[in-house]
Amino acid sequence: MEDQHVILVVEDDQEIQIIVEDALTEGGFAPAIAPSGEEAVTLLRGNRGSYRALVADVKLRGRMDGWEVAKHAREIDPNFPIIYMTGAGADQWPSHGVPNSLLLTKPFAPAQLVTAVSQLLNGGTATT
Amino acid sequence: MEDQHVILVVEDDQEIQIIVEDALTEGGFAPAIAPSGEEAVTLLRGNRGSYRALVADVKLRGRMDGWEVAKHAREIDPNFPIIYMTGAGADQWPSHGVPNSLLLTKPFAPAQLVTAVSQLLNGGTATT
Amino acid sequence: MEDQHVILVVEDDQEIQIIVEDALTEGGFAPAIAPSGEEAVTLLRGNRGSYRALVADVKLRGRMDGWEVAKHAREIDPNFPIIYMTGAGADQWPSHGVPNSLLLTKPFAPAQLVTAVSQLLNGGTATT
Amino acid sequence: MEDQHVILVVEDDQEIQIIVEDALTEGGFAPAIAPSGEEAVTLLRGNRGSYRALVADVKLRGRMDGWEVAKHAREIDPNFPIIYMTGAGADQWPSHGVPNSLLLTKPFAPAQLVTAVSQLLNGGTATT
Amino acid sequence: MEDQHVILVVEDDQEIQIIVEDALTEGGFAPAIAPSGEEAVTLLRGNRGSYRALVADVKLRGRMDGWEVAKHAREIDPNFPIIYMTGAGADQWPSHGVPNSLLLTKPFAPAQLVTAVSQLLNGGTATT
Amino acid sequence: MEDQHVILVVEDDQEIQIIVEDALTEGGFAPAIAPSGEEAVTLLRGNRGSYRALVADVKLRGRMDGWEVAKHAREIDPNFPIIYMTGAGADQWPSHGVPNSLLLTKPFAPAQLVTAVSQLLNGGTATT
Repeated sequence: MEDQHVILVVEDDQEIQIIVEDALTEGGFAPAIAPSGEEAVTLLRGNRGSYRALVADVKLRGRMDGWEVAKHAREIDPNFPIIYMTGAGADQWPSHGVPNSLLLTKPFAPAQLVTAVSQLLNGGTATT
Repeated sequence: MEDQHVILVVEDDQEIQIIVEDALTEGGFAPAIAPSGEEAVTLLRGNRGSYRALVADVKLRGRMDGWEVAKHAREIDPNFPIIYMTGAGADQWPSHGVPNSLLLTKPFAPAQLVTAVSQLLNGGTATT
Repeated sequence: MEDQHVILVVEDDQEIQIIVEDALTEGGFAPAIAPSGEEAVTLLRGNRGSYRALVADVKLRGRMDGWEVAKHAREIDPNFPIIYMTGAGADQWPSHGVPNSLLLTKPFAPAQLVTAVSQLLNGGTATT
Repeated sequence: MEDQHVILVVEDDQEIQIIVEDALTEGGFAPAIAPSGEEAVTLLRGNRGSYRALVADVKLRGRMDGWEVAKHAREIDPNFPIIYMTGAGADQWPSHGVPNSLLLTKPFAPAQLVTAVSQLLNGGTATT
Repeated sequence: MEDQHVILVVEDDQEIQIIVEDALTEGGFAPAIAPSGEEAVTLLRGNRGSYRALVADVKLRGRMDGWEVAKHAREIDPNFPIIYMTGAGADQWPSHGVPNSLLLTKPFAPAQLVTAVSQLLNGGTATT
Repeated sequence: MEDQHVILVVEDDQEIQIIVEDALTEGGFAPAIAPSGEEAVTLLRGNRGSYRALVADVKLRGRMDGWEVAKHAREIDPNFPIIYMTGAGADQWPSHGVPNSLLLTKPFAPAQLVTAVSQLLNGGTATT
């Protein structure tokens, strides 16, 4: 049952990893951290259905950035909730983001992240 | 004044009762538990205006399920915020739910419930 | 291909039938009229997938009203777009309507109906 | 019954008056033109309940601009649908507009106006 | 002034070209047709600010599909309204679409297209 | 970096000041309190860009009320998130509020305030 709470977090910056982990845990979610896009995709493919949402930093070390990770997640599940995190402002989101996703600009308050995840998870059947 | 914070919760499963009570209390709401649909309706009728929202488990012991409790609540107050909880997935919601309600699929994180209640309570005058 | 444009209209008042037919036809939809709730349900069951949306008068002669027709339509297709029409105001909608539906209060302008149907049909994949 | 279709239009530019009148009429609405803000407010006060929505040019000859007319309309009916028209861009709307209103930047296509009016009129009970 | 009404349409199927042209013209928009993605991008780059929205068929002859055209349009203007048209259903939209876009599944009624364009154009300042 | 978390709160009632401060702090925001509208406007003007949102009590001692403070904030930044707090119900909001704002009726639960602030901050790039 618990695994339905698991939120996959792609983040290579340890400081932000901790902020995100604490915020999600306090909200009652179980964060699973992937330090790179490649590892995130491997986890998404290997554990289909175990994650409830993806929280992805846009800028990642290595070849795969957050935009790409999100596209892979949506190919596995077209309704998968995506929250992007970016320090560089929202300028790339309109052309690189996916529909029905949400962008958080760093720095953000923990409550913004928890509300964002909850909104996307609840949104599927929300009528307001 | 406090009674304006009271959220009526219809739940016969004690384990979930506790999760819901804790989540709402932490969010600053005052949960009032009704263990059956019949008792929920009695409370709604006997205390018009004292509850701010209804959190109802769809499947309930006894004759009255969560869908029916919601309909009674809406007959008393047409704008009454309703949050349904279901473990069976959302399949019945589109035909048995009421408009402007919200469905949470069990298991859900406490933050999802708190955000759901807040969203519906704020939604009345929200313009975004 | 055309049948994917067909909108089922449940209306026993001939004057409104004509207004609705003209408005939908002008908008490029193909209205199919059912003069009673019973006939509407028969058509929905007999032609699964041929209708794109239901436009239902709430008050209908005979045993079955528009609220019930909508529930049957949603049991066949949980995402079926529903537009209710009522002259009696919206007072019953919050407790008898289904989620993700829309209520038009008579009298309404033809454009309101066409926009309502288009909004619900487009809404499925709309992100604004 | 017809008067429930009447949309009050405040516009002192005759060219735009005609475009707006034609668009609304084609959509099945009955436009009533007020050439100044003062006359619009007089009509709103003298015919409470006869208008369904206000379409107001922001810039008007005379002392009263469109922002003010809208405020008067909302004092009479807090849910009154307002559509502002402006050639000067949307820059004043965030500080002078009212909630749950809509801004059209001139030039706009007739369909944008008709959709705007229909959206606001349908929005009251829409759940999507 | 007129050019602010121009909607760029990328469509290689002549039959649909005509349906889209007629629908937009009837709504008061001025459609400009590009028969390929490459030509659409050339037009977008050569006439910055002259188009109000993009209506793009997803499947296009040649190397560039509708998803790519939309990305180019958004790089020029991050808020550019995009409407995708597809006969193949919405399955690729969640991973290839851009945020704040809209998908129309063929066949669609002319009113759906006009409402879609109007909704996106009005949405920028809409508060409902 | 922290200052991007700062939420300006205009409140002259100390009891509410404390509730708001605690709620925002728990949510990870940094509240800055202004005891009057005049001081709020001075802070907004003197620290452009340092505040992320305004939480304003509608009724304030002194000449300037919360509606006015919000208008000043929107003249400085047209997209500035505004949350109004009122004990008198929402009746003035439709005519005195600004677009894309949110109204909280006192008493409200802390979670409602935190969700409201988060929703408005996230809403800018949200697509659901």
